[in-house]
Amino acid sequence: MLKSLISLLFLFSLSWESGLTGLSYTNMIFPKTSNTAYVTLNPKKEMNLSTFTICMRFLTDLNQDYALFSYASPGKDNDLLLFRTSQGNYNVYIGNEFVSFTHSRSLNFGEWVQVCSTWESQTGLVGLWVDGKRSVRKGLMRGYKVKPGGAVILGQEQDKMGGGFVSEQSFAGEITDVNLWDYILPANEIKALSAGSSFTAGNVIDWETVSYTENGYVVVESMQKSTTNNNN
Amino acid sequence: MLKSLISLLFLFSLSWESGLTGLSYTNMIFPKTSNTAYVTLNPKKEMNLSTFTICMRFLTDLNQDYALFSYASPGKDNDLLLFRTSQGNYNVYIGNEFVSFTHSRSLNFGEWVQVCSTWESQTGLVGLWVDGKRSVRKGLMRGYKVKPGGAVILGQEQDKMGGGFVSEQSFAGEITDVNLWDYILPANEIKALSAGSSFTAGNVIDWETVSYTENGYVVVESMQKSTTNNNN
Amino acid sequence: MLKSLISLLFLFSLSWESGLTGLSYTNMIFPKTSNTAYVTLNPKKEMNLSTFTICMRFLTDLNQDYALFSYASPGKDNDLLLFRTSQGNYNVYIGNEFVSFTHSRSLNFGEWVQVCSTWESQTGLVGLWVDGKRSVRKGLMRGYKVKPGGAVILGQEQDKMGGGFVSEQSFAGEITDVNLWDYILPANEIKALSAGSSFTAGNVIDWETVSYTENGYVVVESMQKSTTNNNN
Amino acid sequence: MLKSLISLLFLFSLSWESGLTGLSYTNMIFPKTSNTAYVTLNPKKEMNLSTFTICMRFLTDLNQDYALFSYASPGKDNDLLLFRTSQGNYNVYIGNEFVSFTHSRSLNFGEWVQVCSTWESQTGLVGLWVDGKRSVRKGLMRGYKVKPGGAVILGQEQDKMGGGFVSEQSFAGEITDVNLWDYILPANEIKALSAGSSFTAGNVIDWETVSYTENGYVVVESMQKSTTNNNN
Amino acid sequence: MLKSLISLLFLFSLSWESGLTGLSYTNMIFPKTSNTAYVTLNPKKEMNLSTFTICMRFLTDLNQDYALFSYASPGKDNDLLLFRTSQGNYNVYIGNEFVSFTHSRSLNFGEWVQVCSTWESQTGLVGLWVDGKRSVRKGLMRGYKVKPGGAVILGQEQDKMGGGFVSEQSFAGEITDVNLWDYILPANEIKALSAGSSFTAGNVIDWETVSYTENGYVVVESMQKSTTNNNN
Repeated sequence: MLKSLISLLFLFSLSWESGLTGLSYTNMIFPKTSNTAYVTLNPKKEMNLSTFTICMRFLTDLNQDYALFSYASPGKDNDLLLFRTSQGNYNVYIGNEFVSFTHSRSLNFGEWVQVCSTWESQTGLVGLWVDGKRSVRKGLMRGYKVKPGGAVILGQEQDKMGGGFVSEQSFAGEITDVNLWDYILPANEIKALSAGSSFTAGNVIDWETVSYTENGYVVVESMQKSTTNNNN
Repeated sequence: MLKSLISLLFLFSLSWESGLTGLSYTNMIFPKTSNTAYVTLNPKKEMNLSTFTICMRFLTDLNQDYALFSYASPGKDNDLLLFRTSQGNYNVYIGNEFVSFTHSRSLNFGEWVQVCSTWESQTGLVGLWVDGKRSVRKGLMRGYKVKPGGAVILGQEQDKMGGGFVSEQSFAGEITDVNLWDYILPANEIKALSAGSSFTAGNVIDWETVSYTENGYVVVESMQKSTTNNNN
Repeated sequence: MLKSLISLLFLFSLSWESGLTGLSYTNMIFPKTSNTAYVTLNPKKEMNLSTFTICMRFLTDLNQDYALFSYASPGKDNDLLLFRTSQGNYNVYIGNEFVSFTHSRSLNFGEWVQVCSTWESQTGLVGLWVDGKRSVRKGLMRGYKVKPGGAVILGQEQDKMGGGFVSEQSFAGEITDVNLWDYILPANEIKALSAGSSFTAGNVIDWETVSYTENGYVVVESMQKSTTNNNN
Repeated sequence: MLKSLISLLFLFSLSWESGLTGLSYTNMIFPKTSNTAYVTLNPKKEMNLSTFTICMRFLTDLNQDYALFSYASPGKDNDLLLFRTSQGNYNVYIGNEFVSFTHSRSLNFGEWVQVCSTWESQTGLVGLWVDGKRSVRKGLMRGYKVKPGGAVILGQEQDKMGGGFVSEQSFAGEITDVNLWDYILPANEIKALSAGSSFTAGNVIDWETVSYTENGYVVVESMQKSTTNNNN
Repeated sequence: MLKSLISLLFLFSLSWESGLTGLSYTNMIFPKTSNTAYVTLNPKKEMNLSTFTICMRFLTDLNQDYALFSYASPGKDNDLLLFRTSQGNYNVYIGNEFVSFTHSRSLNFGEWVQVCSTWESQTGLVGLWVDGKRSVRKGLMRGYKVKPGGAVILGQEQDKMGGGFVSEQSFAGEITDVNLWDYILPANEIKALSAGSSFTAGNVIDWETVSYTENGYVVVESMQKSTTNNNN
């Protein structure tokens, strides 16, 4: 499914639209590192989370630290942050604390990565999935709740809510299929998502319908779902 | 079988229970390194061993030394200890002495390891099995007997019976399928165990029925056997 | 198709011809690094490009920087330049600016590489394809137009239009299948080109019919299309 | 066949016997490095060799130099010696001279190695076979004859006939299938031996029937041939 | 075919013969590096070459520079030389000049290499084939002619015609299937030669019939063609 998407994108003219309702198959491209380019997503539910699953796909050849998904709430700039280090590790932040998952494999040329993270306040367990494979789980902020009323941002790491960006932690590359659930997505659904063999829309952020606002140099590619059943 | 287990665990609510009889398919998670979190197992027979086979599965991305299985008896804190070094080698201790098995392969992201060790007092031969492959055998404590009346602990390395823990040798990660026999398990049964194609319950420690006590930050996931025949 | 070509080339006598209309299956060989050997291509349309796709195949074991395709327009020596660095990265220049694509894999002995690059002024997005795999896209010279009236040169990097060559950036090796389009070639056509399973002629530079002028030590191998359907 | 053997060994009780006639499928285990543990083999013919083939299997994770097969004759302590260096190379000694075969691959965990060496006095050519693959041949002691009346020892390197052992060159691990012929075994028989698809007994040392004497800490595992046709 | 040869060689007695007409399937073994051991080949045509293809197979684990095929003519000691460097590169010399082909892969234990080189005076293009894969072509001595009346030597690098040997550039190992043509062998024939699926005899040096003279420590293995159709 992803492969169809990527191939077809070249067939369609690109569009810059702000504050639009998301279309099917949208790919957000951050052409350069900067402290100005980002996309704000507007979840359909409050980010009032004692449990969550976040999934996304990305493509990059960046050789620096970068934020993949940044949620800052009032008073907690890293209330829910998925971050990749220049060494290739994944850091998951909840309520300003974090755990780090060792991931030594560097990215190959042109290779998309599908990454998910799960967290449950009751146990504090954080899981990280990369391309359908689950990491060891680690403990983080047991009993905590991610707070509502914050800002969901792609492309930048927030050092204060909605701002405090630095180019050295910005993302350059392509992002798609960002979904967020307020529950733990079953393992088989995460694997199916990763393989592209089935799809479950997020109930907090649903990539197909999410409204968003672009800022700075961002290119959004979209296309209609009906066109995806060609051979590729 | 293991794969089914791992996937299904996410579908079930987690439970903290102390001193319970073990359920089918139990996964013990040590979310952080510490000198406080551990599980004490209560074997169904005395640890009075002139021969044994110990098997277990674990998942971790720890980059330090750690104990996988620690049995301390009165006066012998490392009476039966399975230990992994930060270089990836496995050390097997009997009666405070040890042999080290070279294992250069580092653990891949999300990769469970199935490890067994065998020992026979008559010859002193120690074998180590990793993922169904047997190491060279080495000699250790010929004529010795592991002593009863000690403490079986997961998650910590005992420097005295039931205590003397240090975070630098603690385990963080997930452990399951810990079984102990007072005889040498045949090679084909070890291979079958590793492959998950059949199962032999330990006659000293039987993971499905073992009673245990948790201490500190430990998360125990369990589920009923009857639910495991879904597709995964 | 490429494989047939390469094999058959040995069966045919070589020819030095200047200013000829290109024949089917032409392979240009730059036997040595130098600041004197190059081929000038004469596009059939002006290089008046707000969008383009450039594709080519090359074989080399050079361990230095080198230009793969150099277009210098009046006042812009790197108006459209595909460049490979000694580290294996690909740099794409538009209007004297460039982006660099990380490509750590070094070339294997005797391994031809098929490389394409796409660019669109409207978004500034540059894509790089290596052997049918697309890189992350990057942003470069949004709103710019590559200017007509310049010189298209293989084998040398132009530091001024039609000249300014240095041996340290010259190409030594073999080049074929250079095609240029003034639009974005669809992803599936790029993949088919790379795999040799189909062929789309460039509408600005068409390798089969392009006229060219050789300078210095260059060897051009050609053969008739009709001979290519032998088994190889 | 080897695999069956290894697996079944665990099913049988071990036995220490000295001066016995060898049984079918015997595995000799040297549990530790030492200067005391070794096995003396008694060939059925004199070691009066102008041509030979020596084959054996071994398993070890030793990270030092060690002797695999040591024959010292009166006045020539390395009259026929197969030696492995800590770098992984194999040295073959004839009449105190040696050639070294480069073998960069280190041993994988639990991986048995089948090694053979051939020598012919007439040409001086020495061949080394590792897992059924022949090395380049090298020249050594053309016209020489290995002398009878010496000591064949496994587990130690002799610095004088029957003694002069040092722990730093001792073997720790498992050895089986040691056979010696007074002729060059054909290549296809060496390959079949290595693959376990057929078996040719040595006419100077026949592992199935050889008599031997143990010294120090050595464990000999044996089992009846009739038990080997189980599935493994 | 090669494999059959190698295996069968062990079944036949070796023979030292000088000045003989070559038999089918002859393998020349240089057991040691030296400045004394070499074989002189007597081509059936003069080495009067404006075009050539040279092919051969070799097996070695040498870790130094060495000559694979050395032709010195009066006044030109490296008139046609195929040379391998300790780094694994191949240098081809024509008329005392050379080009170097990068070949980073080191030789695996027991792995024969089939190498060919082609050259054409008209273009100066040199090609190198390793195991049926063609390198990039390079330019060397355009317009030159290799001169007749010289010495063709295996095993040594000539610093003057027929002599000037140094051990540091001598070959130790095994050589077979040396053939030389005074034309460019078609690519498909070179591939077939490499794969052993067909055979084209050289018209200047034909390995099956070439007469030769041995000097120093060289072992020549030969066998009849009729014996090669056994299974191996």
